[in-house]
Amino acid sequence: MFTIAIHGGAGLSTPEDLGPQRETQARLDLERSLQAAGVILANGGTALDAVVAAVKVMEDSEMFNAGRGSVLASDGNCYMDASIMDGATENAGALCGSSVVQNPIEAAAKVMTDTPYVMLVGDRLTQFAQEQGLSCQEPEWFKTTYRKEQLVDAQKNNTIMLDHEKAEAGRKKDNCKGTVGAVALDQHGNLAAATSTGGLCNKDPGRVGDSALIGAGTYAKNSTCAVSATGHGELFIRANVAGRMSAMIEFGHKTLEDAAHTLIFNELPEDIGGLISVDREGNVSLPFNTGGMFRGWMSEDNIPHVKVWKGE
Amino acid sequence: MFTIAIHGGAGLSTPEDLGPQRETQARLDLERSLQAAGVILANGGTALDAVVAAVKVMEDSEMFNAGRGSVLASDGNCYMDASIMDGATENAGALCGSSVVQNPIEAAAKVMTDTPYVMLVGDRLTQFAQEQGLSCQEPEWFKTTYRKEQLVDAQKNNTIMLDHEKAEAGRKKDNCKGTVGAVALDQHGNLAAATSTGGLCNKDPGRVGDSALIGAGTYAKNSTCAVSATGHGELFIRANVAGRMSAMIEFGHKTLEDAAHTLIFNELPEDIGGLISVDREGNVSLPFNTGGMFRGWMSEDNIPHVKVWKGE
Repeated sequence: MFTIAIHGGAGLSTPEDLGPQRETQARLDLERSLQAAGVILANGGTALDAVVAAVKVMEDSEMFNAGRGSVLASDGNCYMDASIMDGATENAGALCGSSVVQNPIEAAAKVMTDTPYVMLVGDRLTQFAQEQGLSCQEPEWFKTTYRKEQLVDAQKNNTIMLDHEKAEAGRKKDNCKGTVGAVALDQHGNLAAATSTGGLCNKDPGRVGDSALIGAGTYAKNSTCAVSATGHGELFIRANVAGRMSAMIEFGHKTLEDAAHTLIFNELPEDIGGLISVDREGNVSLPFNTGGMFRGWMSEDNIPHVKVWKGE
Repeated sequence: MFTIAIHGGAGLSTPEDLGPQRETQARLDLERSLQAAGVILANGGTALDAVVAAVKVMEDSEMFNAGRGSVLASDGNCYMDASIMDGATENAGALCGSSVVQNPIEAAAKVMTDTPYVMLVGDRLTQFAQEQGLSCQEPEWFKTTYRKEQLVDAQKNNTIMLDHEKAEAGRKKDNCKGTVGAVALDQHGNLAAATSTGGLCNKDPGRVGDSALIGAGTYAKNSTCAVSATGHGELFIRANVAGRMSAMIEFGHKTLEDAAHTLIFNELPEDIGGLISVDREGNVSLPFNTGGMFRGWMSEDNIPHVKVWKGE
């Protein structure tokens, strides 16, 4: 038995806002992400390798707010956050504010496996990634035309585009795709979770969101669940969402679905975000309280399920 | 009713290692910290203001690893982490890697109250602190002779001095005082928690520890507890200690003391660290699994209780 579940961000409002062309491309990329992880899991690979592979596909796609195609901060640069956790060992890796590492999730994984630390930031993160032989790019490489236009728009309207914000007249309307993430159960019964993001369009360059923080945007523990969240990061940090979901199962004896739904539908404000989760029995829960969330899952039948809208 | 509890770090081994002169000074500074918070609480001030005042005294003391007197990273500079949380609103503020803000806990509080974010890092944090009129100092100002000698020692022995590490021959033996922190209950029934640190002696300059992370080193929620942790930060992040303690009370229906003791004595490895905690009933629990923890508490009788060693 194995399972992979992914998200490409919550906060979409309507199909009209997204546009048919971008929707088609996003669905294809989500399917590719599931398949990249599925091959690993089908061949007996680890949940950890699977979530890295799934997230890398979404980081490399310009459709999602992570890696290339990340939103731009107020100074016109990309500052990326990422984190990863291994449910088997409960080891973890994280980073924030990266501007040059091509695949931040790979750097987070290296922080976990190749340092005595959980989190690295700043110039030292860049240096570490280079020492580890990870691909780095000039800051300009990450900045797509689409994101540049979005920043101009945001600055014209003097707004910080939060993942959860509804599109308003005059703005690029599908600004809200937020974070990407993956959770997996492998054939060895181990869980893993990974999250990666460019954060908020027009954000302060020094802002760190929940995607960088173990216990907020990412958590994994074999005995409870693996979780990756997406949405208004500050609220997810304050509510300690990913750690809280694990604790709801451990101490509150909730099922995976009950814990995930309680968090997203009863505790967090409406139109804020969502999460993806998986447990050791292969249960999957992917709730969101926004108009849509790019999401997908796949099990050992190798049939990728990709959805975007509410009620779909 | 009000209560303040503080710590100045866990990881001490024996009175001989610390030395009588440093012990006397540390006890005096802990008492001053309790009194600074006590005056605020006795006059009807907020738990939030009280924990900031308590932590500031310890940041300003050279005896503790926070603010002036922070340990030095491998490049010879101080990189300070801090975080704060308001149990009434569940709002929070945090920062990491600060090298110039005189009182990092004040900057964390300003991030909470004066930005839409929870966490700020890097140059933008410095700029923000300056805009807010907070005192900043040249990086050299933070570096005491004692810490410089400690770094030389650590580099000679090629060690990263973790809070939990036992002193070994040839090293400065009281290197392990770690983090400082405070938790409080005010007369309005509100809780708050704050943590501040210089991290690990000879650490990687990019390393971020649990003291910077809401849910790891710091958490506060009126309905459960306020917590500040000290110890081997990576383990505290992975176990989501502060958020987990709150969840143990909320979902596991444990008492404050039961939750705190379970974490420190049953779940975390021996000789790793400790925490301080308070709840809305004014209960206080300050467990640690090291040889000592600088700690203290005070209630409305205004009698400061200061302890250092195990069994004291």
